[in-house]
Amino acid sequence: MVTIFVHREGKTEQVTSIDKRWLNRSAGAVLWVDLAAPSIPESLILSETFAFHPLAVEDAMSALQYPKAEAYDGYLYVVLHGIHYQATGVCFATHDVDSFLGPSYLVTVHDGESRTIAELRDHAPRNPKLLGDGPVALFHRIVDAMVDHYRPEIDKLEDRIDELEEQVFDSSSPDLVRQILREKRDVALLRRIMTPQRDVLARLARRDFVDISTEMSFRFRDVYDHVVRITDDALTFQDRITGILDAHLSNVSNRLNEVMKVLTIVSVVFLPLMLLTGMYGMNVPLPHFPGGDSAQFWWLAGISVAITIGMLAYFRRRRWL
Amino acid sequence: MVTIFVHREGKTEQVTSIDKRWLNRSAGAVLWVDLAAPSIPESLILSETFAFHPLAVEDAMSALQYPKAEAYDGYLYVVLHGIHYQATGVCFATHDVDSFLGPSYLVTVHDGESRTIAELRDHAPRNPKLLGDGPVALFHRIVDAMVDHYRPEIDKLEDRIDELEEQVFDSSSPDLVRQILREKRDVALLRRIMTPQRDVLARLARRDFVDISTEMSFRFRDVYDHVVRITDDALTFQDRITGILDAHLSNVSNRLNEVMKVLTIVSVVFLPLMLLTGMYGMNVPLPHFPGGDSAQFWWLAGISVAITIGMLAYFRRRRWL
Amino acid sequence: MVTIFVHREGKTEQVTSIDKRWLNRSAGAVLWVDLAAPSIPESLILSETFAFHPLAVEDAMSALQYPKAEAYDGYLYVVLHGIHYQATGVCFATHDVDSFLGPSYLVTVHDGESRTIAELRDHAPRNPKLLGDGPVALFHRIVDAMVDHYRPEIDKLEDRIDELEEQVFDSSSPDLVRQILREKRDVALLRRIMTPQRDVLARLARRDFVDISTEMSFRFRDVYDHVVRITDDALTFQDRITGILDAHLSNVSNRLNEVMKVLTIVSVVFLPLMLLTGMYGMNVPLPHFPGGDSAQFWWLAGISVAITIGMLAYFRRRRWL
Amino acid sequence: MVTIFVHREGKTEQVTSIDKRWLNRSAGAVLWVDLAAPSIPESLILSETFAFHPLAVEDAMSALQYPKAEAYDGYLYVVLHGIHYQATGVCFATHDVDSFLGPSYLVTVHDGESRTIAELRDHAPRNPKLLGDGPVALFHRIVDAMVDHYRPEIDKLEDRIDELEEQVFDSSSPDLVRQILREKRDVALLRRIMTPQRDVLARLARRDFVDISTEMSFRFRDVYDHVVRITDDALTFQDRITGILDAHLSNVSNRLNEVMKVLTIVSVVFLPLMLLTGMYGMNVPLPHFPGGDSAQFWWLAGISVAITIGMLAYFRRRRWL
Amino acid sequence: MVTIFVHREGKTEQVTSIDKRWLNRSAGAVLWVDLAAPSIPESLILSETFAFHPLAVEDAMSALQYPKAEAYDGYLYVVLHGIHYQATGVCFATHDVDSFLGPSYLVTVHDGESRTIAELRDHAPRNPKLLGDGPVALFHRIVDAMVDHYRPEIDKLEDRIDELEEQVFDSSSPDLVRQILREKRDVALLRRIMTPQRDVLARLARRDFVDISTEMSFRFRDVYDHVVRITDDALTFQDRITGILDAHLSNVSNRLNEVMKVLTIVSVVFLPLMLLTGMYGMNVPLPHFPGGDSAQFWWLAGISVAITIGMLAYFRRRRWL
Repeated sequence: MVTIFVHREGKTEQVTSIDKRWLNRSAGAVLWVDLAAPSIPESLILSETFAFHPLAVEDAMSALQYPKAEAYDGYLYVVLHGIHYQATGVCFATHDVDSFLGPSYLVTVHDGESRTIAELRDHAPRNPKLLGDGPVALFHRIVDAMVDHYRPEIDKLEDRIDELEEQVFDSSSPDLVRQILREKRDVALLRRIMTPQRDVLARLARRDFVDISTEMSFRFRDVYDHVVRITDDALTFQDRITGILDAHLSNVSNRLNEVMKVLTIVSVVFLPLMLLTGMYGMNVPLPHFPGGDSAQFWWLAGISVAITIGMLAYFRRRRWL
Repeated sequence: MVTIFVHREGKTEQVTSIDKRWLNRSAGAVLWVDLAAPSIPESLILSETFAFHPLAVEDAMSALQYPKAEAYDGYLYVVLHGIHYQATGVCFATHDVDSFLGPSYLVTVHDGESRTIAELRDHAPRNPKLLGDGPVALFHRIVDAMVDHYRPEIDKLEDRIDELEEQVFDSSSPDLVRQILREKRDVALLRRIMTPQRDVLARLARRDFVDISTEMSFRFRDVYDHVVRITDDALTFQDRITGILDAHLSNVSNRLNEVMKVLTIVSVVFLPLMLLTGMYGMNVPLPHFPGGDSAQFWWLAGISVAITIGMLAYFRRRRWL
Repeated sequence: MVTIFVHREGKTEQVTSIDKRWLNRSAGAVLWVDLAAPSIPESLILSETFAFHPLAVEDAMSALQYPKAEAYDGYLYVVLHGIHYQATGVCFATHDVDSFLGPSYLVTVHDGESRTIAELRDHAPRNPKLLGDGPVALFHRIVDAMVDHYRPEIDKLEDRIDELEEQVFDSSSPDLVRQILREKRDVALLRRIMTPQRDVLARLARRDFVDISTEMSFRFRDVYDHVVRITDDALTFQDRITGILDAHLSNVSNRLNEVMKVLTIVSVVFLPLMLLTGMYGMNVPLPHFPGGDSAQFWWLAGISVAITIGMLAYFRRRRWL
Repeated sequence: MVTIFVHREGKTEQVTSIDKRWLNRSAGAVLWVDLAAPSIPESLILSETFAFHPLAVEDAMSALQYPKAEAYDGYLYVVLHGIHYQATGVCFATHDVDSFLGPSYLVTVHDGESRTIAELRDHAPRNPKLLGDGPVALFHRIVDAMVDHYRPEIDKLEDRIDELEEQVFDSSSPDLVRQILREKRDVALLRRIMTPQRDVLARLARRDFVDISTEMSFRFRDVYDHVVRITDDALTFQDRITGILDAHLSNVSNRLNEVMKVLTIVSVVFLPLMLLTGMYGMNVPLPHFPGGDSAQFWWLAGISVAITIGMLAYFRRRRWL
Repeated sequence: MVTIFVHREGKTEQVTSIDKRWLNRSAGAVLWVDLAAPSIPESLILSETFAFHPLAVEDAMSALQYPKAEAYDGYLYVVLHGIHYQATGVCFATHDVDSFLGPSYLVTVHDGESRTIAELRDHAPRNPKLLGDGPVALFHRIVDAMVDHYRPEIDKLEDRIDELEEQVFDSSSPDLVRQILREKRDVALLRRIMTPQRDVLARLARRDFVDISTEMSFRFRDVYDHVVRITDDALTFQDRITGILDAHLSNVSNRLNEVMKVLTIVSVVFLPLMLLTGMYGMNVPLPHFPGGDSAQFWWLAGISVAITIGMLAYFRRRRWL
């Protein structure tokens, strides 16, 4: 779906076709063309009307691009990743938003999943300042909103990690390692998409590309700060997940230790006693304990109690109990 | 709460409103405006009187900022983190202090938790040199005191790590891993807030920002040295905590080994003996040992002792005992 | 096998010998010489006709070279690695393609395994644009196709890692570690060949070598992007394999825990019961339970049930069951 | 304690006070002032006679400084760490030696522990070349000797690591992990003090500070080489200690395996035999083995031997024996 | 032992003393002086005839130097490491070859172990081109041969690692960890000597030192490539050894699991059965099974078989069998 907005003489209106004169900066028009999940015929606008470089057009039309910023003659091609809203699932999912930023126009290409752009498309006709501030300000607006949408997902991720940290000490569900592995993967994915985006924004903030004003570079520096913090969070999360895994392994070992102590204590107490009863069950004459037959039972009971107490004292001294 | 100090003609006095002429360096006045947990109306002073950039003002008013230094036209915006005094708790907590450093003024914005600034606010009227040395010197003073407050907390952290190192060899409390994990997190947090602060101070020391004199850069280099040492400590702590965790895992394994040896020795000694008594308990005629019935008992005892001694000798040779 | 194509006056034809004038750029001819697994006499064309540097010729003729780009006087010597198609095996295998890129010629040397070059050799006579666009465009074409051939192998590798990730939770086949180790080695190999290729392509894209036009540098940047993504994938794979190994070790420990719990529970329940039956089997008078001989049996059964229930309750409280 | 040497007209003499004219390079005098554990009044010489920067003086008087080199106006302030001789202990201990290097003087400040300086103080009056070669040569001499004193301590550390490497395979003393942890800490400390010293020496060798002649830079490059080798040794040691810990953990696991095999073999052999004897001990008529009562015993013995042999064969096939 | 070759007027001859005029480039003579394990008097040639810097001479005469390249006035001092041929041992051993490279001479100092130099010493008189191509070409020849000698040792090391990788899955010899540790140390040593050599060669290839011609820099780039590949191999080896250790630990755990399963299965089957026989051995009247005394035995056997089958089914369901 192609949506075209043009801002002329203080007013923003939606049009259906592009007047090529608008592409000329001196015309004073600001143009925003949004291609949501464009069909092949719709994509011709990129190569024919705007005459973008075939490689950039190919990238814009292909599914998942790596975040990057590339300067071409007279325009900038930027790929950034937005985050999906995940009402039900627990995993990250991103979509890429490709932008062509020219002196008097902004062209955005995406798969139609971007909530940010959908909202701006709604506001554009009602809020003339949106396009009126020029294509760079509009582009900053999109980038800023896209980065802001990461925060709630990051917070959810942090909550899940907090929960894991609790769980690791409380229970020993067999799913724990699976969950740890899944979060680890999510965090790795987060880092993997944020690091190149950070580099793109650093270049925008540093004004590596000449068509960005000082004022705009301040704004991109602000977005850059947010992205740096998210990248930093990802590193912290990674560290914490490693810690959780270590704690889990240590807990498993500790529990094994506990189990084995119980087995050992019980065996060490009962095996000698069973030998004793076995000996008295032998069809072989044993030497008599002094004091008659019934005294024999009490002697036996006494020896059993002595063995038990001795063993328990021994374990206590070794701090097993 | 807004506190305004102005230094003119060798005297520092607290005033309630700002004369805009003071902002002009040629007026010779030095101004310190402190906003402790400012309300929205109070924050207007930032945007209206000083006309700071809206993004910087927004950052200054928002809760937790990442440490950074940003040059704007005519002033410097610096975010640094101070440390809370923690009488009872064991964890780190920091608050951010935002400073706007202009040619003739210093504006500090914080959440009212900063002990450093509270103390300086008390001293300012009594000690005219405080503002008299200019806004950079005042700013250095604040930064220096903020960094000095880290040292006692670092020392406490080191003590806790020393303690953990002792504990890991002495006992095997189930809380040990939990404590290790908590200290690890604290150390990670320390590193995370010190690294960007170190970078900010390096830039101040290197005079990346032109309005810092050689003398002041020497002083910031001194603060920078302190921060480098703290960052370095954090790395050492991290290394030591990893070592403690390794030692803990190795200890758990060693203890399991000890437990299993006891179980094995006892089983290996008693099982053959029990088989023997079981055989003599069978309702099946056994071949007679030579020497009559009572000799039979002594034969049996002899065999038992021989098995026991043989097994123990075997374990001794394998170095289990 | 030596194949020589020359493009003159809009036509590409295969010839058997080289006219030295073609090497002169002003002649307007474009020359492609392909040496597939060249014999020593065939390789003389490199040193005699083209007068390439002896070291470069030696490298080109030797078996496995490290990916690299080296500028010599008037030509560029580039080594890149293509990937073998692996219908049956599971491991990566690569072959190196050496290219000499001059102002009016491209010389490719390889071991005859390169599918990319075989295909282009077929197309060259039919598609005059192939050589007509100049040697750099032809070289880009080869590099682009070679890099594209990596993708299906990367995908297969990813599938195998996905599978491993499933397996690690489902079964405990003794071959798992062997497989993990093999994939780890594959991923390391992938990284090892991609990293220098990425550097070579970055230099081509940055136009470190003067004979590359802006348009061509755009195209190499595109190939570079693909290689960056593959390198990035390799890093992610490495991370995931480490995670799989951790999960495997944790699972082994968990299973040991489970096994030991069963042993301990059974031992702890049956050993006391066996002691009891042993005591009643002794040839020694026991004190009578009240209520006659048959009551004695029921007392015994009651004690057994009580011990069993008590032990199980204890284990349940410790969360073993 | 303040010791002052002055070299004039080819002679070095110890004096008690400083003639301020000596500080002037044109006077042709070379001055060495050594402050060993200076008292506060003694330290006034730094701020008053030499007028060093207050921050540098403060650093010089404070306990443990981080190694660093700082250029001030007209002099260089360098902090380096010497090593204590450790006749009895096993741990590293260092003291810092602070030097102020001016055009015609060298001022050294330390805690009186430096053997290097004590020796040079003895030689200074007797060896006029010591001061005669200028302050930089004297400073190089001190630095060179300080670094040389590290070597025997490094060798001792290497011996201790060699020993640990032997021990880990021979015995399983519970102190092993404690020792490993201690050496790890020592090595970390070594790295921590050598890395900044290396950087200081690199700057001296690269002549970052203008008052160092080519000849002197050659000499500092030589010292730098020694420090690089020590830093490199520290990295190797760290690697080896990690290897020792891994070997230790693996050994503990191997030993547990051995213990468990013994337990399992014994249990698997004896439990079936005990069941057999238990069955024949039952007060229940069993079916008769053919061949009369005494044959019954030999049947039983035969079955026991068969079970034992079968089990052992099974274990041998699984390579447990 | 000092060997002196001089190349004049197309002829190379061995002489016994040096004519100082030869050191002058304009004399057109090329001089090669080789000092194999020089005595102190022999070493005087370095300081007296050539007047090399005392620090360089000291380094050249001392035992093991770190690989490095240092430019002095008019000559280059280079330390490189050759590898010993190890017919019997398995460990790496290297010797350092020190070279002084001047405009018209090459001086090599070594401990007499260098096979490379011994061979060249033999060829020098017979092959006039060796010295005739100038001292840089001769130096390149030595370096090239030294690096080539690494390859067979690297291949042996790779074979040993391949073998370890096989062994880790096949057997569990107690020496495995010892071997792993030894190879790890070898690989670390390899990396440690190759990394600085790579840097030296990179500087030679980049022509950091002005007296190297373009042609020679091509040749050094070739040697550099070999060294890079060896360094790269060392990294790969390190990775593989880490993988082998992980696999070993995982195998030990797996085997422990297997052992424990056998113990648990046997215990769980036999303990209930033993309880049963114990109960029937009690001197206490048991309730009669219906069907007379001999039926009692068959009941018992049935219960035993039922318990056994039930337990085995349970283990099968948990996938232990």
